[in-house]
Amino acid sequence: MARPYRVEVPLRWSDMDAYGHVNNVQYLRLLEDARVIGFREWFPGRDVVASGLVVTHHEIEYLRPLVYRAAPIEIEMWVTAVSAAAFSLGYRILDPLSVGTDVYAVAQTGLAAFDLEAGRPRRLGDAAMAELRSRVGKPVAFRWVGK
Amino acid sequence: MARPYRVEVPLRWSDMDAYGHVNNVQYLRLLEDARVIGFREWFPGRDVVASGLVVTHHEIEYLRPLVYRAAPIEIEMWVTAVSAAAFSLGYRILDPLSVGTDVYAVAQTGLAAFDLEAGRPRRLGDAAMAELRSRVGKPVAFRWVGK
Amino acid sequence: MARPYRVEVPLRWSDMDAYGHVNNVQYLRLLEDARVIGFREWFPGRDVVASGLVVTHHEIEYLRPLVYRAAPIEIEMWVTAVSAAAFSLGYRILDPLSVGTDVYAVAQTGLAAFDLEAGRPRRLGDAAMAELRSRVGKPVAFRWVGK
Amino acid sequence: MARPYRVEVPLRWSDMDAYGHVNNVQYLRLLEDARVIGFREWFPGRDVVASGLVVTHHEIEYLRPLVYRAAPIEIEMWVTAVSAAAFSLGYRILDPLSVGTDVYAVAQTGLAAFDLEAGRPRRLGDAAMAELRSRVGKPVAFRWVGK
Repeated sequence: MARPYRVEVPLRWSDMDAYGHVNNVQYLRLLEDARVIGFREWFPGRDVVASGLVVTHHEIEYLRPLVYRAAPIEIEMWVTAVSAAAFSLGYRILDPLSVGTDVYAVAQTGLAAFDLEAGRPRRLGDAAMAELRSRVGKPVAFRWVGK
Repeated sequence: MARPYRVEVPLRWSDMDAYGHVNNVQYLRLLEDARVIGFREWFPGRDVVASGLVVTHHEIEYLRPLVYRAAPIEIEMWVTAVSAAAFSLGYRILDPLSVGTDVYAVAQTGLAAFDLEAGRPRRLGDAAMAELRSRVGKPVAFRWVGK
Repeated sequence: MARPYRVEVPLRWSDMDAYGHVNNVQYLRLLEDARVIGFREWFPGRDVVASGLVVTHHEIEYLRPLVYRAAPIEIEMWVTAVSAAAFSLGYRILDPLSVGTDVYAVAQTGLAAFDLEAGRPRRLGDAAMAELRSRVGKPVAFRWVGK
Repeated sequence: MARPYRVEVPLRWSDMDAYGHVNNVQYLRLLEDARVIGFREWFPGRDVVASGLVVTHHEIEYLRPLVYRAAPIEIEMWVTAVSAAAFSLGYRILDPLSVGTDVYAVAQTGLAAFDLEAGRPRRLGDAAMAELRSRVGKPVAFRWVGK
Protein backbone atom coordinates (compact mmCIF):
# COMPACT_ATOMS: atom_id res chain seq x y z
CA MET A 1 0.00 0.00 0.00
CA ALA A 2 1.51 3.26 -1.19
CA ARG A 3 2.31 6.18 1.09
CA PRO A 4 0.12 9.22 0.39
CA TYR A 5 1.35 11.92 -1.94
CA ARG A 6 1.85 15.15 0.00
CA VAL A 7 1.43 18.65 -1.34
CA GLU A 8 1.54 22.04 0.35
CA VAL A 9 -1.31 24.33 -0.62
CA PRO A 10 -1.26 28.03 0.32
CA LEU A 11 -4.32 29.60 1.89
CA ARG A 12 -5.71 32.98 0.90
CA TRP A 13 -7.00 35.48 3.41
CA SER A 14 -10.20 35.55 1.38
CA ASP A 15 -10.78 31.85 2.08
CA MET A 16 -12.20 33.01 5.39
CA ASP A 17 -15.88 33.87 5.62
CA ALA A 18 -17.78 36.22 7.91
CA TYR A 19 -17.30 33.79 10.82
CA GLY A 20 -13.53 34.29 10.59
CA HIS A 21 -12.79 30.68 9.60
CA VAL A 22 -11.83 29.16 6.28
CA ASN A 23 -15.21 28.62 4.68
CA ASN A 24 -16.32 25.01 4.30
CA VAL A 25 -16.69 25.38 0.51
CA GLN A 26 -13.12 26.64 0.20
CA TYR A 27 -11.80 23.33 1.54
CA LEU A 28 -12.98 21.83 -1.75
CA ARG A 29 -11.12 24.61 -3.57
CA LEU A 30 -7.95 23.61 -1.69
CA LEU A 31 -8.49 20.01 -2.81
CA GLU A 32 -8.81 21.23 -6.40
CA ASP A 33 -5.45 22.97 -6.02
CA ALA A 34 -3.95 19.75 -4.64
CA ARG A 35 -5.21 17.79 -7.66
CA VAL A 36 -3.95 20.37 -10.16
CA ILE A 37 -0.49 20.39 -8.58
CA GLY A 38 -0.39 16.64 -7.97
CA PHE A 39 -1.60 15.51 -11.38
CA ARG A 40 1.24 17.38 -13.07
CA GLU A 41 3.60 15.17 -11.12
CA TRP A 42 1.58 11.96 -11.37
CA PHE A 43 1.01 12.27 -15.11
CA PRO A 44 4.00 14.11 -16.58
CA GLY A 45 3.92 14.36 -20.34
CA ARG A 46 0.62 12.51 -20.66
CA ASP A 47 -1.90 15.07 -19.65
CA VAL A 48 -4.75 13.06 -18.25
CA VAL A 49 -6.39 16.29 -17.12
CA ALA A 50 -6.20 18.00 -20.51
CA SER A 51 -7.56 14.86 -22.16
CA GLY A 52 -10.56 15.30 -19.94
CA LEU A 53 -11.44 14.45 -16.36
CA VAL A 54 -14.71 15.36 -14.71
CA VAL A 55 -15.52 15.37 -11.02
CA THR A 56 -18.46 13.05 -10.39
CA HIS A 57 -18.59 13.03 -6.62
CA HIS A 58 -17.20 14.71 -3.50
CA GLU A 59 -17.54 13.72 0.11
CA ILE A 60 -15.91 15.74 2.88
CA GLU A 61 -15.99 15.63 6.64
CA TYR A 62 -14.88 18.66 8.64
CA LEU A 63 -12.97 17.87 11.81
CA ARG A 64 -11.42 21.12 13.04
CA PRO A 65 -11.80 24.81 12.19
CA LEU A 66 -9.04 26.39 10.12
CA VAL A 67 -7.99 30.03 10.31
CA TYR A 68 -5.93 31.84 7.67
CA ARG A 69 -2.18 31.88 8.22
CA ALA A 70 0.75 32.61 5.92
CA ALA A 71 2.06 29.03 6.08
CA PRO A 72 0.48 26.58 3.61
CA ILE A 73 -1.60 23.68 4.80
CA GLU A 74 -0.62 20.19 3.70
CA ILE A 75 -2.84 17.85 1.78
CA GLU A 76 -2.27 14.12 1.65
CA MET A 77 -3.77 12.60 -1.48
CA TRP A 78 -3.98 8.98 -2.55
CA VAL A 79 -6.05 6.71 -4.76
CA THR A 80 -8.92 4.77 -3.19
CA ALA A 81 -10.22 2.98 -6.30
CA VAL A 82 -9.38 2.63 -10.02
CA SER A 83 -11.41 1.25 -12.89
CA ALA A 84 -10.99 1.48 -16.66
CA ALA A 85 -12.74 4.83 -16.93
CA ALA A 86 -12.83 6.30 -13.43
CA PHE A 87 -10.97 6.55 -10.16
CA SER A 88 -11.39 8.05 -6.73
CA LEU A 89 -9.04 9.95 -4.47
CA GLY A 90 -8.80 10.14 -0.70
CA TYR A 91 -7.43 13.20 1.09
CA ARG A 92 -6.45 14.42 4.53
CA ILE A 93 -5.99 18.16 5.13
CA LEU A 94 -3.23 18.57 7.71
CA ASP A 95 -1.06 21.16 9.36
CA PRO A 96 2.59 20.63 8.36
CA LEU A 97 3.62 22.78 11.33
CA SER A 98 1.91 20.50 13.80
CA VAL A 99 3.95 17.81 15.55
CA GLY A 100 0.83 15.83 16.25
CA THR A 101 -1.74 14.58 13.83
CA ASP A 102 -4.15 17.47 13.62
CA VAL A 103 -6.50 16.78 10.76
CA TYR A 104 -8.76 19.59 9.52
CA ALA A 105 -10.78 17.42 7.17
CA VAL A 106 -10.92 14.11 5.36
CA ALA A 107 -12.44 13.85 1.91
CA GLN A 108 -12.95 11.76 -1.18
CA THR A 109 -13.44 12.71 -4.84
CA GLY A 110 -14.70 10.59 -7.70
CA LEU A 111 -13.36 11.42 -11.17
CA ALA A 112 -14.28 10.03 -14.56
CA ALA A 113 -12.27 10.13 -17.77
CA PHE A 114 -14.28 12.09 -20.28
CA ASP A 115 -13.72 12.99 -23.91
CA LEU A 116 -14.63 16.66 -23.71
CA GLU A 117 -14.80 17.12 -27.49
CA ALA A 118 -16.86 14.03 -28.20
CA GLY A 119 -18.92 14.61 -25.05
CA ARG A 120 -18.75 11.03 -23.79
CA PRO A 121 -16.87 8.83 -21.32
CA ARG A 122 -13.50 7.47 -22.39
CA ARG A 123 -11.00 4.96 -21.04
CA LEU A 124 -8.14 6.10 -18.82
CA GLY A 125 -5.39 4.38 -20.75
CA ASP A 126 -2.86 1.84 -19.52
CA ALA A 127 -0.14 4.23 -18.38
CA ALA A 128 -2.55 6.36 -16.36
CA MET A 129 -4.13 3.27 -14.80
CA ALA A 130 -0.70 1.89 -13.84
CA GLU A 131 0.23 5.20 -12.23
CA LEU A 132 -3.04 5.32 -10.31
CA ARG A 133 -2.73 1.69 -9.15
CA SER A 134 0.73 2.46 -7.77
CA ARG A 135 -0.84 5.11 -5.58
CA VAL A 136 -3.68 3.11 -4.07
CA GLY A 137 -4.01 3.59 -0.32
CA LYS A 138 -6.49 2.99 2.46
CA PRO A 139 -10.18 3.84 2.31
CA VAL A 140 -10.98 7.27 3.75
CA ALA A 141 -11.76 7.02 7.45
CA PHE A 142 -15.01 8.97 7.51
CA ARG A 143 -16.69 9.15 10.90
CA TRP A 144 -19.93 10.59 9.55
CA VAL A 145 -22.96 8.52 10.53
CA GLY A 146 -25.67 11.09 9.89
CA LYS A 147 -27.28 9.63 6.79
CA MET B 1 -43.39 13.07 4.47
CA ALA B 2 -42.99 16.77 3.68
CA ARG B 3 -42.61 18.18 0.19
CA PRO B 4 -39.17 19.71 -0.41
CA TYR B 5 -38.65 23.42 0.12
CA ARG B 6 -37.82 25.07 -3.20
CA VAL B 7 -35.62 28.10 -3.70
CA GLU B 8 -34.36 29.80 -6.82
CA VAL B 9 -30.65 30.61 -6.73
CA PRO B 10 -29.06 32.89 -9.36
CA LEU B 11 -25.86 31.81 -11.06
CA ARG B 12 -22.93 34.12 -11.69
CA TRP B 13 -20.95 34.12 -14.90
CA SER B 14 -17.86 33.65 -12.75
CA ASP B 15 -19.21 30.32 -11.47
CA MET B 16 -17.86 28.88 -14.69
CA ASP B 17 -14.28 27.65 -14.83
CA ALA B 18 -11.82 27.37 -17.70
CA TYR B 19 -13.78 24.39 -19.07
CA GLY B 20 -16.79 26.64 -19.64
CA HIS B 21 -19.02 24.85 -17.11
CA VAL B 22 -20.13 25.80 -13.63
CA ASN B 23 -17.21 24.60 -11.53
CA ASN B 24 -17.90 21.61 -9.30
CA VAL B 25 -16.90 23.56 -6.16
CA GLN B 26 -19.38 26.32 -6.99
CA TYR B 27 -22.28 23.87 -6.70
CA LEU B 28 -21.51 23.81 -2.97
CA ARG B 29 -21.57 27.61 -3.02
CA LEU B 30 -25.06 27.46 -4.56
CA LEU B 31 -26.14 25.11 -1.77
CA GLU B 32 -24.81 27.61 0.77
CA ASP B 33 -26.97 30.29 -0.85
CA ALA B 34 -29.98 27.97 -0.67
CA ARG B 35 -29.41 27.40 3.06
CA VAL B 36 -28.95 31.12 3.78
CA ILE B 37 -32.17 32.01 1.95
CA GLY B 38 -34.11 28.99 3.25
CA PHE B 39 -33.15 29.25 6.90
CA ARG B 40 -34.51 32.80 7.05
CA GLU B 41 -37.88 31.34 6.13
CA TRP B 42 -37.59 28.16 8.19
CA PHE B 43 -36.45 29.93 11.34
CA PRO B 44 -38.01 33.43 11.32
CA GLY B 45 -37.31 35.42 14.45
CA ARG B 46 -35.25 32.66 16.04
CA ASP B 47 -31.97 32.83 14.30
CA VAL B 48 -30.64 29.32 14.44
CA VAL B 49 -27.83 30.35 12.12
CA ALA B 50 -26.75 33.37 14.17
CA SER B 51 -26.82 31.23 17.32
CA GLY B 52 -24.29 29.06 15.59
CA LEU B 53 -24.40 26.27 13.03
CA VAL B 54 -21.35 24.58 11.60
CA VAL B 55 -21.13 22.40 8.52
CA THR B 56 -19.75 19.01 9.52
CA HIS B 57 -20.15 17.09 6.30
CA HIS B 58 -20.98 17.44 2.58
CA GLU B 59 -21.63 14.81 0.00
CA ILE B 60 -22.46 15.71 -3.59
CA GLU B 61 -22.94 13.75 -6.77
CA TYR B 62 -22.74 15.53 -10.12
CA LEU B 63 -25.21 14.30 -12.72
CA ARG B 64 -25.19 16.81 -15.57
CA PRO B 65 -22.99 19.75 -16.59
CA LEU B 66 -24.38 23.22 -15.96
CA VAL B 67 -23.59 26.30 -18.04
CA TYR B 68 -24.20 29.88 -16.92
CA ARG B 69 -27.51 31.41 -17.92
CA ALA B 70 -29.40 34.45 -16.69
CA ALA B 71 -32.26 32.37 -15.24
CA PRO B 72 -31.72 31.04 -11.71
CA ILE B 73 -31.43 27.35 -11.04
CA GLU B 74 -33.79 25.77 -8.52
CA ILE B 75 -32.70 23.96 -5.42
CA GLU B 76 -34.95 21.56 -3.56
CA MET B 77 -33.94 21.28 0.07
CA TRP B 78 -35.33 19.04 2.80
CA VAL B 79 -34.30 17.47 6.09
CA THR B 80 -32.92 13.93 6.07
CA ALA B 81 -32.22 13.51 9.80
CA VAL B 82 -32.64 15.47 13.07
CA SER B 83 -31.13 14.91 16.48
CA ALA B 84 -30.90 17.11 19.57
CA ALA B 85 -27.74 18.88 18.41
CA ALA B 86 -27.43 18.21 14.67
CA PHE B 87 -29.37 17.68 11.48
CA SER B 88 -28.75 16.90 7.85
CA LEU B 89 -30.21 18.29 4.65
CA GLY B 90 -30.82 16.71 1.29
CA TYR B 91 -30.81 18.72 -1.95
CA ARG B 92 -31.55 18.39 -5.64
CA ILE B 93 -30.26 21.07 -8.04
CA LEU B 94 -32.81 21.43 -10.82
CA ASP B 95 -33.69 23.54 -13.81
CA PRO B 96 -36.98 25.36 -13.15
CA LEU B 97 -37.29 25.98 -16.91
CA SER B 98 -37.21 22.27 -17.69
CA VAL B 99 -40.50 20.44 -18.12
CA GLY B 100 -38.80 17.16 -17.38
CA THR B 101 -36.82 16.17 -14.36
CA ASP B 102 -33.32 17.29 -15.26
CA VAL B 103 -31.21 17.06 -12.14
CA TYR B 104 -27.76 18.66 -12.16
CA ALA B 105 -26.70 17.28 -8.80
CA VAL B 106 -27.91 15.66 -5.60
CA ALA B 107 -26.25 16.44 -2.29
CA GLN B 108 -26.38 16.17 1.46
CA THR B 109 -25.01 18.42 4.21
CA GLY B 110 -24.55 17.67 7.90
CA LEU B 111 -24.86 20.61 10.28
CA ALA B 112 -24.26 20.80 14.02
CA ALA B 113 -25.53 23.39 16.48
CA PHE B 114 -22.54 25.10 17.96
CA ASP B 115 -22.11 27.78 20.59
CA LEU B 116 -19.58 29.95 18.75
CA GLU B 117 -18.72 32.05 21.81
CA ALA B 118 -18.29 29.14 24.20
CA GLY B 119 -16.64 27.06 21.48
CA ARG B 120 -18.67 23.92 22.11
CA PRO B 121 -21.67 21.98 20.78
CA ARG B 122 -25.09 23.11 21.92
CA ARG B 123 -28.66 21.80 21.65
CA LEU B 124 -30.89 22.92 18.80
CA GLY B 125 -33.87 23.88 20.94
CA ASP B 126 -37.45 22.59 20.79
CA ALA B 127 -38.81 25.09 18.25
CA ALA B 128 -35.97 24.53 15.79
CA MET B 129 -36.27 20.76 16.17
CA ALA B 130 -40.03 20.89 15.56
CA GLU B 131 -39.48 22.97 12.42
CA LEU B 132 -36.83 20.58 11.16
CA ARG B 133 -38.98 17.50 11.88
CA SER B 134 -41.82 19.02 9.86
CA ARG B 135 -39.48 19.17 6.88
CA VAL B 136 -38.16 15.61 6.94
CA GLY B 137 -38.15 13.99 3.50
CA LYS B 138 -36.64 11.01 1.75
CA PRO B 139 -33.01 9.95 1.96
CA VAL B 140 -30.87 11.39 -0.84
CA ALA B 141 -30.80 9.03 -3.81
CA PHE B 142 -27.05 8.90 -4.39
CA ARG B 143 -25.96 6.57 -7.17
CA TRP B 144 -22.28 6.77 -6.26
CA VAL B 145 -20.76 3.36 -5.66
CA GLY B 146 -17.10 4.25 -6.01
CA LYS B 147 -15.97 3.91 -2.41
CA MET C 1 -27.73 62.53 -22.16
CA ALA C 2 -29.18 59.08 -21.56
CA ARG C 3 -30.53 57.90 -18.23
CA PRO C 4 -28.43 55.12 -16.70
CA TYR C 5 -29.39 51.51 -17.30
CA ARG C 6 -30.40 49.91 -14.02
CA VAL C 7 -29.94 46.28 -13.06
CA GLU C 8 -30.55 44.43 -9.81
CA VAL C 9 -27.70 42.15 -8.81
CA PRO C 10 -28.13 39.62 -5.98
CA LEU C 11 -25.49 39.37 -3.27
CA ARG C 12 -24.14 36.12 -1.93
CA TRP C 13 -23.48 35.53 1.74
CA SER C 14 -19.96 34.51 0.73
CA ASP C 15 -19.33 38.00 -0.69
CA MET C 16 -18.59 38.98 2.89
CA ASP C 17 -15.08 38.60 4.23
CA ALA C 18 -13.77 38.03 7.76
CA TYR C 19 -14.63 41.65 8.66
CA GLY C 20 -18.31 40.90 8.06
CA HIS C 21 -18.66 43.29 5.11
CA VAL C 22 -18.91 42.64 1.38
CA ASN C 23 -15.25 42.35 0.41
CA ASN C 24 -13.89 45.19 -1.72
CA VAL C 25 -12.87 42.79 -4.50
CA GLN C 26 -16.38 41.38 -4.68
CA TYR C 27 -17.74 44.79 -5.71
CA LEU C 28 -15.90 44.24 -8.99
CA ARG C 29 -17.55 40.83 -9.23
CA LEU C 30 -20.93 42.53 -8.86
CA LEU C 31 -20.00 44.91 -11.68
CA GLU C 32 -19.11 41.91 -13.85
CA ASP C 33 -22.57 40.49 -13.18
CA ALA C 34 -24.11 43.84 -14.14
CA ARG C 35 -22.22 43.84 -17.45
CA VAL C 36 -23.14 40.23 -18.25
CA ILE C 37 -26.84 40.90 -17.58
CA GLY C 38 -26.84 44.33 -19.20
CA PHE C 39 -24.97 43.44 -22.38
CA ARG C 40 -27.56 40.77 -23.21
CA GLU C 41 -30.11 43.56 -23.29
CA TRP C 42 -27.89 46.18 -24.93
CA PHE C 43 -26.67 43.88 -27.69
CA PRO C 44 -29.45 41.35 -28.38
CA GLY C 45 -28.70 39.03 -31.27
CA ARG C 46 -25.30 40.55 -31.96
CA ASP C 47 -23.16 39.17 -29.25
CA VAL C 48 -20.50 41.79 -28.74
CA VAL C 49 -19.26 39.86 -25.71
CA ALA C 50 -18.93 36.52 -27.49
CA SER C 51 -17.12 38.27 -30.36
CA GLY C 52 -14.60 39.33 -27.79
CA LEU C 53 -14.33 42.09 -25.21
CA VAL C 54 -11.47 42.44 -22.78
CA VAL C 55 -11.36 44.55 -19.65
CA THR C 56 -8.45 46.97 -19.91
CA HIS C 57 -9.01 49.11 -16.84
CA HIS C 58 -11.03 49.40 -13.61
CA GLU C 59 -11.31 52.26 -11.19
CA ILE C 60 -13.52 52.04 -8.12
CA GLU C 61 -14.13 54.25 -5.13
CA TYR C 62 -15.75 52.79 -2.02
CA LEU C 63 -18.17 55.10 -0.26
CA ARG C 64 -20.09 53.02 2.27
CA PRO C 65 -19.76 49.51 3.72
CA LEU C 66 -22.19 46.91 2.43
CA VAL C 67 -23.46 43.93 4.45
CA TYR C 68 -25.10 40.85 2.95
CA ARG C 69 -28.87 40.91 2.73
CA ALA C 70 -31.37 38.85 0.74
CA ALA C 71 -32.48 41.83 -1.37
CA PRO C 72 -30.36 42.56 -4.45
CA ILE C 73 -28.38 45.74 -4.73
CA GLU C 74 -28.94 47.97 -7.74
CA ILE C 75 -26.27 48.95 -10.21
CA GLU C 76 -26.60 51.93 -12.50
CA MET C 77 -24.47 51.51 -15.61
CA TRP C 78 -23.86 53.90 -18.46
CA VAL C 79 -21.30 54.67 -21.16
CA THR C 80 -18.66 57.30 -20.45
CA ALA C 81 -16.72 57.13 -23.73
CA VAL C 82 -16.83 55.29 -27.09
CA SER C 83 -14.24 54.93 -29.79
CA ALA C 84 -13.98 52.61 -32.81
CA ALA C 85 -12.41 49.78 -30.82
CA ALA C 86 -13.04 50.53 -27.16
CA PHE C 87 -15.48 52.04 -24.70
CA SER C 88 -15.77 52.76 -21.02
CA LEU C 89 -18.60 52.31 -18.55
CA GLY C 90 -19.53 54.26 -15.45
CA TYR C 91 -21.39 52.66 -12.53
CA ARG C 92 -23.04 53.51 -9.25
CA ILE C 93 -23.81 50.74 -6.76
CA LEU C 94 -27.01 51.68 -4.95
CA ASP C 95 -29.59 50.34 -2.56
CA PRO C 96 -32.95 50.01 -4.33
CA LEU C 97 -34.64 49.82 -0.91
CA SER C 98 -33.29 53.21 0.11
CA VAL C 99 -35.46 56.29 -0.37
CA GLY C 100 -32.39 58.48 -0.31
CA THR C 101 -29.37 58.32 -2.50
CA ASP C 102 -27.13 55.94 -0.62
CA VAL C 103 -24.25 55.06 -2.89
CA TYR C 104 -21.97 52.17 -1.90
CA ALA C 105 -19.45 52.76 -4.65
CA VAL C 106 -18.79 54.49 -7.95
CA ALA C 107 -16.66 52.87 -10.61
CA GLN C 108 -15.46 52.89 -14.18
CA THR C 109 -14.37 50.08 -16.51
CA GLY C 110 -12.49 50.30 -19.79
CA LEU C 111 -13.24 47.60 -22.36
CA ALA C 112 -11.62 46.90 -25.73
CA ALA C 113 -13.02 44.91 -28.62
CA PHE C 114 -10.70 41.99 -29.19
CA ASP C 115 -10.64 39.19 -31.72
CA LEU C 116 -9.98 36.32 -29.33
CA GLU C 117 -9.14 33.82 -32.10
CA ALA C 118 -6.82 36.11 -34.01
CA GLY C 119 -5.41 37.51 -30.79
CA ARG C 120 -5.60 41.15 -31.79
CA PRO C 121 -7.78 44.24 -31.38
CA ARG C 122 -10.82 44.55 -33.60
CA ARG C 123 -13.38 47.27 -34.38
CA LEU C 124 -16.64 47.40 -32.47
CA GLY C 125 -18.91 47.60 -35.49
CA ASP C 126 -21.47 50.26 -36.38
CA ALA C 127 -24.47 48.76 -34.61
CA ALA C 128 -22.60 48.26 -31.33
CA MET C 129 -21.16 51.78 -31.52
CA ALA C 130 -24.61 53.24 -32.14
CA GLU C 131 -26.02 51.37 -29.15
CA LEU C 132 -23.16 52.52 -26.96
CA ARG C 133 -23.49 56.16 -28.10
CA SER C 134 -27.17 56.11 -27.19
CA ARG C 135 -26.19 55.22 -23.64
CA VAL C 136 -23.57 57.89 -23.05
CA GLY C 137 -23.95 59.62 -19.69
CA LYS C 138 -21.98 61.80 -17.33
CA PRO C 139 -18.37 61.24 -16.29
CA VAL C 140 -18.04 59.25 -13.07
CA ALA C 141 -17.93 61.57 -10.06
CA PHE C 142 -14.86 60.19 -8.35
CA ARG C 143 -13.84 62.03 -5.20
CA TRP C 144 -10.49 60.24 -4.91
CA VAL C 145 -7.57 62.66 -4.72
CA GLY C 146 -4.93 60.35 -3.29
CA LYS C 147 -2.68 59.91 -6.28
CA MET D 1 13.31 56.68 -3.30
CA ALA D 2 12.86 53.16 -1.95
CA ARG D 3 13.04 50.03 -4.07
CA PRO D 4 9.69 48.24 -4.32
CA TYR D 5 8.88 45.44 -1.90
CA ARG D 6 8.56 42.17 -3.81
CA VAL D 7 6.33 39.27 -2.91
CA GLU D 8 5.55 36.04 -4.74
CA VAL D 9 1.86 35.22 -4.87
CA PRO D 10 0.67 31.77 -6.01
CA LEU D 11 -2.12 31.51 -8.58
CA ARG D 12 -5.01 29.11 -8.31
CA TRP D 13 -6.36 27.19 -11.28
CA SER D 14 -9.76 28.60 -10.38
CA ASP D 15 -8.48 32.14 -10.94
CA MET D 16 -9.14 31.46 -14.61
CA ASP D 17 -12.56 32.19 -16.06
CA ALA D 18 -14.44 30.67 -18.99
CA TYR D 19 -12.10 32.47 -21.41
CA GLY D 20 -9.17 30.47 -20.04
CA HIS D 21 -7.34 33.51 -18.61
CA VAL D 22 -6.94 34.73 -15.06
CA ASN D 23 -10.12 36.72 -14.57
CA ASN D 24 -9.68 40.49 -14.31
CA VAL D 25 -11.34 40.59 -10.87
CA GLN D 26 -8.92 37.97 -9.54
CA TYR D 27 -6.00 40.33 -10.15
CA LEU D 28 -7.41 42.41 -7.30
CA ARG D 29 -7.56 39.24 -5.21
CA LEU D 30 -3.85 38.70 -5.91
CA LEU D 31 -3.16 42.28 -4.76
CA GLU D 32 -5.07 41.55 -1.55
CA ASP D 33 -2.82 38.55 -0.98
CA ALA D 34 0.24 40.75 -1.57
CA ARG D 35 -0.97 43.26 1.03
CA VAL D 36 -1.76 40.56 3.61
CA ILE D 37 1.68 39.00 3.20
CA GLY D 38 3.53 42.31 2.91
CA PHE D 39 1.89 44.09 5.83
CA ARG D 40 3.01 41.31 8.20
CA GLU D 41 6.55 42.20 7.25
CA TRP D 42 6.07 45.97 7.08
CA PHE D 43 4.29 46.22 10.42
CA PRO D 44 5.60 43.41 12.64
CA GLY D 45 4.25 43.48 16.17
CA ARG D 46 2.11 46.55 15.54
CA ASP D 47 -0.79 45.20 13.62
CA VAL D 48 -1.93 48.12 11.53
CA VAL D 49 -4.31 45.80 9.72
CA ALA D 50 -5.94 44.38 12.84
CA SER D 51 -6.32 47.93 14.21
CA GLY D 52 -8.35 48.62 11.11
CA LEU D 53 -7.61 49.51 7.51
CA VAL D 54 -10.27 49.93 4.87
CA VAL D 55 -9.80 50.00 1.13
CA THR D 56 -11.16 53.27 -0.22
CA HIS D 57 -10.06 53.06 -3.84
CA HIS D 58 -8.61 50.76 -6.49
CA GLU D 59 -7.33 51.53 -9.94
CA ILE D 60 -5.92 48.83 -12.18
CA GLU D 61 -4.75 48.69 -15.76
CA TYR D 62 -4.43 45.33 -17.51
CA LEU D 63 -1.47 45.03 -19.84
CA ARG D 64 -1.10 41.35 -20.75
CA PRO D 65 -3.24 38.23 -20.34
CA LEU D 66 -2.19 35.81 -17.62
CA VAL D 67 -2.77 32.04 -17.72
CA TYR D 68 -2.59 29.74 -14.71
CA ARG D 69 0.76 28.09 -14.05
CA ALA D 70 2.23 26.38 -11.00
CA ALA D 71 4.89 29.08 -10.49
CA PRO D 72 3.80 32.12 -8.47
CA ILE D 73 3.59 35.53 -10.05
CA GLU D 74 5.54 38.37 -8.46
CA ILE D 75 4.01 41.56 -7.16
CA GLU D 76 6.01 44.71 -6.60
CA MET D 77 4.37 46.91 -4.01
CA TRP D 78 5.35 50.37 -2.81
CA VAL D 79 3.85 53.46 -1.20
CA THR D 80 2.71 56.29 -3.46
CA ALA D 81 1.36 58.68 -0.80
CA VAL D 82 1.06 58.92 3.00
CA SER D 83 -1.01 61.22 5.17
CA ALA D 84 -1.91 61.10 8.87
CA ALA D 85 -4.90 58.82 8.34
CA ALA D 86 -4.49 57.28 4.89
CA PHE D 87 -1.99 56.02 2.35
CA SER D 88 -1.88 54.59 -1.12
CA LEU D 89 0.03 51.74 -2.66
CA GLY D 90 1.36 51.20 -6.15
CA TYR D 91 1.82 47.72 -7.64
CA ARG D 92 3.23 45.96 -10.66
CA ILE D 93 2.25 42.34 -11.35
CA LEU D 94 5.24 40.64 -12.95
CA ASP D 95 6.54 37.27 -14.01
CA PRO D 96 9.55 36.30 -11.86
CA LEU D 97 10.48 33.70 -14.50
CA SER D 98 10.77 36.33 -17.21
CA VAL D 99 14.18 37.78 -18.00
CA GLY D 100 12.54 40.82 -19.52
CA THR D 101 10.12 43.18 -17.94
CA ASP D 102 6.79 41.58 -18.73
CA VAL D 103 4.15 43.41 -16.73
CA TYR D 104 0.69 41.89 -16.49
CA ALA D 105 -0.87 44.85 -14.74
CA VAL D 106 -0.19 48.03 -12.83
CA ALA D 107 -2.46 49.15 -10.03
CA GLN D 108 -3.01 51.49 -7.13
CA THR D 109 -4.97 51.10 -3.89
CA GLY D 110 -6.06 53.76 -1.42
CA LEU D 111 -6.35 52.67 2.21
CA ALA D 112 -7.64 54.56 5.24
CA ALA D 113 -6.98 53.87 8.90
CA PHE D 114 -10.29 53.11 10.52
CA ASP D 115 -11.33 52.32 14.07
CA LEU D 116 -13.58 49.35 13.32
CA GLU D 117 -15.09 49.26 16.83
CA ALA D 118 -15.79 52.99 17.06
CA GLY D 119 -16.80 53.10 13.40
CA ARG D 120 -14.77 56.17 12.49
CA PRO D 121 -11.48 57.21 10.90
CA ARG D 122 -8.38 57.11 13.08
CA ARG D 123 -4.77 58.24 12.76
CA LEU D 124 -2.11 55.86 11.49
CA GLY D 125 0.36 56.40 14.29
CA ASP D 126 3.97 57.58 14.12
CA ALA D 127 5.63 54.20 13.70
CA ALA D 128 3.33 53.12 10.89
CA MET D 129 3.78 56.48 9.13
CA ALA D 130 7.56 56.22 9.41
CA GLU D 131 7.48 52.71 7.94
CA LEU D 132 5.25 53.85 5.09
CA ARG D 133 7.39 56.92 4.35
CA SER D 134 10.46 54.69 4.08
CA ARG D 135 8.70 52.77 1.32
CA VAL D 136 7.59 55.68 -0.86
CA GLY D 137 8.30 55.11 -4.54
CA LYS D 138 7.31 56.49 -7.91
CA PRO D 139 3.77 57.28 -9.01
CA VAL D 140 2.11 54.40 -10.85
CA ALA D 141 2.71 54.67 -14.59
CA PHE D 142 -0.85 54.27 -15.81
CA ARG D 143 -1.29 54.55 -19.55
CA TRP D 144 -5.11 54.69 -19.38
CA VAL D 145 -6.53 57.75 -21.10
CA GLY D 146 -10.12 56.62 -21.53
CA LYS D 147 -11.85 58.86 -19.02
